[in-house]
Amino acid sequence: MLTELANQGPPHTQVQQRVRHLLEIAPLTVEQISFILDQAKPFQEFQRHPLKKLATLRGKTIALAFFEPSTRTRISFATAAARLGADMMNLQAESSSLKKGESLMDTVWTLEAMRPDAIVIRHAASGAAHFVAQRVEIPVLNAGDGTHEHPTQALLDALTIRDRKGKLEDLNVAIVGDILHSRVARSNIHLLTKYGARFSLCGPPMWVPPELETLAPRIARMSRIEQALEGADVVMALRVQTERLHEPSFSADDYVRLFQLTPERLKKAKPDAIVLHPGPIIRGLEIDPVVADGPQSCILEQVSNGLAVRMTLLFQLVSGLGPDAPHPASGTVQ
Amino acid sequence: MLTELANQGPPHTQVQQRVRHLLEIAPLTVEQISFILDQAKPFQEFQRHPLKKLATLRGKTIALAFFEPSTRTRISFATAAARLGADMMNLQAESSSLKKGESLMDTVWTLEAMRPDAIVIRHAASGAAHFVAQRVEIPVLNAGDGTHEHPTQALLDALTIRDRKGKLEDLNVAIVGDILHSRVARSNIHLLTKYGARFSLCGPPMWVPPELETLAPRIARMSRIEQALEGADVVMALRVQTERLHEPSFSADDYVRLFQLTPERLKKAKPDAIVLHPGPIIRGLEIDPVVADGPQSCILEQVSNGLAVRMTLLFQLVSGLGPDAPHPASGTVQ
Amino acid sequence: MLTELANQGPPHTQVQQRVRHLLEIAPLTVEQISFILDQAKPFQEFQRHPLKKLATLRGKTIALAFFEPSTRTRISFATAAARLGADMMNLQAESSSLKKGESLMDTVWTLEAMRPDAIVIRHAASGAAHFVAQRVEIPVLNAGDGTHEHPTQALLDALTIRDRKGKLEDLNVAIVGDILHSRVARSNIHLLTKYGARFSLCGPPMWVPPELETLAPRIARMSRIEQALEGADVVMALRVQTERLHEPSFSADDYVRLFQLTPERLKKAKPDAIVLHPGPIIRGLEIDPVVADGPQSCILEQVSNGLAVRMTLLFQLVSGLGPDAPHPASGTVQ
Repeated sequence: MLTELANQGPPHTQVQQRVRHLLEIAPLTVEQISFILDQAKPFQEFQRHPLKKLATLRGKTIALAFFEPSTRTRISFATAAARLGADMMNLQAESSSLKKGESLMDTVWTLEAMRPDAIVIRHAASGAAHFVAQRVEIPVLNAGDGTHEHPTQALLDALTIRDRKGKLEDLNVAIVGDILHSRVARSNIHLLTKYGARFSLCGPPMWVPPELETLAPRIARMSRIEQALEGADVVMALRVQTERLHEPSFSADDYVRLFQLTPERLKKAKPDAIVLHPGPIIRGLEIDPVVADGPQSCILEQVSNGLAVRMTLLFQLVSGLGPDAPHPASGTVQ
Repeated sequence: MLTELANQGPPHTQVQQRVRHLLEIAPLTVEQISFILDQAKPFQEFQRHPLKKLATLRGKTIALAFFEPSTRTRISFATAAARLGADMMNLQAESSSLKKGESLMDTVWTLEAMRPDAIVIRHAASGAAHFVAQRVEIPVLNAGDGTHEHPTQALLDALTIRDRKGKLEDLNVAIVGDILHSRVARSNIHLLTKYGARFSLCGPPMWVPPELETLAPRIARMSRIEQALEGADVVMALRVQTERLHEPSFSADDYVRLFQLTPERLKKAKPDAIVLHPGPIIRGLEIDPVVADGPQSCILEQVSNGLAVRMTLLFQLVSGLGPDAPHPASGTVQ
Repeated sequence: MLTELANQGPPHTQVQQRVRHLLEIAPLTVEQISFILDQAKPFQEFQRHPLKKLATLRGKTIALAFFEPSTRTRISFATAAARLGADMMNLQAESSSLKKGESLMDTVWTLEAMRPDAIVIRHAASGAAHFVAQRVEIPVLNAGDGTHEHPTQALLDALTIRDRKGKLEDLNVAIVGDILHSRVARSNIHLLTKYGARFSLCGPPMWVPPELETLAPRIARMSRIEQALEGADVVMALRVQTERLHEPSFSADDYVRLFQLTPERLKKAKPDAIVLHPGPIIRGLEIDPVVADGPQSCILEQVSNGLAVRMTLLFQLVSGLGPDAPHPASGTVQ
């Protein structure tokens, strides 16, 4: 959860509480989420400055502990940290080389003994970020843990949606693809449910099992994509891991035929519907290039917003400044 | 090409034009090349300073997108960027994991959405840097694209030659080795031809096919290395990729016997001839250690000059300052 | 050796001599070692500062040349360099890709031509750091060479022991595990012998051959761990590389049964004995988790002290300041 103090005090003072970790979206309040998104706005603008360097975290060290391969999330966190002026410790390991939970902790404790000011962790095991957070004294940011959550992705998606739709409340959201294995889908469902969203889930049956309907109060599975997109404000296409399609019962061609997000199918959504994808996209598989590059697509805005959200969280969790401190992106560039 | 404005205005104003990309040597003018080499001189000196850090690109971000393995070129660009004060985004990927041109662009667009100020790209596909440059809004520096060009290598070679020979004009240049697959050879032939060079190409027949003679007006293939070196001012030995020698028709021993650059053979060149090699060298294969370490060898000067040339190009393409701005290496160290 | 001048002048002026390399512990004097440990104390404190960034090595470049995989030592040196304000060149290569000594030197000379101010080298070949130091003009820090030495590990271990025991002199030291292949054991034996230590070596017979007794004047092999721990002030458990246990004659279970450091066995040592391990530890193999996490364990202090020792050495070898210069960690944070 974002703060150990999350359940103390009335909502508006919760926002004032000092946050400690960012582990998952589920326990966050609407006020906490909105506070993060509001703080991200100046950082969004900051990316367009000719000089993108602050001294806010100068003298601080961010440990990036990626136990799963990652390119875009790792570069996003690293760039966010660099633009705040922080130093970095860079650990990239295959989680397969870590046989036990103790070994994960010994790796993390070793990093911690070198006195980083926060640790960003990605790990193949659901719950890994919580496990670590309970055992270290520094803030932990979950950069994806198994099929559990990917909270910074949901926050950057929320920032993107709020910018494009002008609100987060009461949206119709269609999610298409491998929902079963998607921590992105889970974090997004948790986040948007807090704002009253209704969800249509759609994908190959083995990836959209009935138990997913327990994730949120207003959620329904749809077997046909046209039905799922009907009236959607937001369409989220998920990444298809082709190695999961080797089953003879369901091929990549089947996926394209039944679930690819095409311009034709997108017409079923509202005319001003927007399209999100966490990337990396495989054009021609889960998404038609015309949709990926079209005016409804927000894919590259999502990437830019990822920097703004991650700068916000690193600033909030590491700077030691209270929520009323002047926003660093309003200061002068160093 | 170095600038989209390259064909506007008389030569001396072309130099004044703001450059945009560095994709290849072929379309550059002599004035543009000489301007780059002149600008590199203070950066050359700068590498010997006790403090090697400028604030010139502080607040700028350079994306290093290496889709082919690289050690020396990547470290050279990274060190150049760091000494100019820039931050970096570091992408190292196997191009084999990118099946299509669209995927290359999706990777690049993702980087671009994080607002770097330039992208340095190496890719196994000839033309990749051009392809990218046409699709992004930031400067692109080609760090080697397939067998097409490696323009910063030719510029650092030119700086090395000009320092040692006192001029670039009218040189006799022998190139020995796998010329067919060498982007280094192509970029050097394009560059030195602009200054009136004559070329002798020499190597195993499968690596020196007749069509190479169309690369420049004054170029000839020679079957014997002694003949190729005759009267040379500059001898360029190329790297031999031993995996290309597994053909029974031509072994590594054959290469050594027929084409290794030995002290004996080097005597055929002019007494003050210099020896270049883009590295990494394999001693005892393409070059005899006595030559590699001898007074005619410029191999390590080439490496040092690579930093000076790359600092120049990053400064020119990223700083936003005009060509008449004070040279950053003349300022005080930050 | 730490300095080429190590054998000139009386002891107290030796300390004043400018050091040049850190290659091995063996030739260092007690005064030199104590000077390093004294200098490390303020850096130890510095790791707990809210802002951990000095400008001491700003404008300097440290080349990290790791020809063997490394996580903790590489991150430790990189963090030490960053906190001193230095830039870095990062080379990570498999030594298997370097077939000959010349190739190692060509790689190193290429780095050197880019003008780093020091090179940190780890290599699978014993003697590699010496070999390099004789052929470059910049300081070389040995981060582990084959089974020869790992001098920064011994120095951080000494700092840890001195802090916990209040002295380095006349200690009883038990070393348990794969001593034959351990550069950590060798460096520690060299260092602590200078302070009068007595050693008990213990482990599977193939890892504790008789010739190890020639390493120091007061050293004995023990077949039973209980015997080796008897009266120990310091217990060093070494890492077990499980790939060396595939021999049917000695399994991982055998190791656990005979040589694992358990709470029961640790009682044989002095009540205030401390436990060191260079990491990474495999819990349940060479060490019982109760011991690893217990009050006698110094494993994480060792990691923290590694930063302090490496900052000291980089400062001493690179800054160009004499030993009487004000300590950088006493200055203001940049």
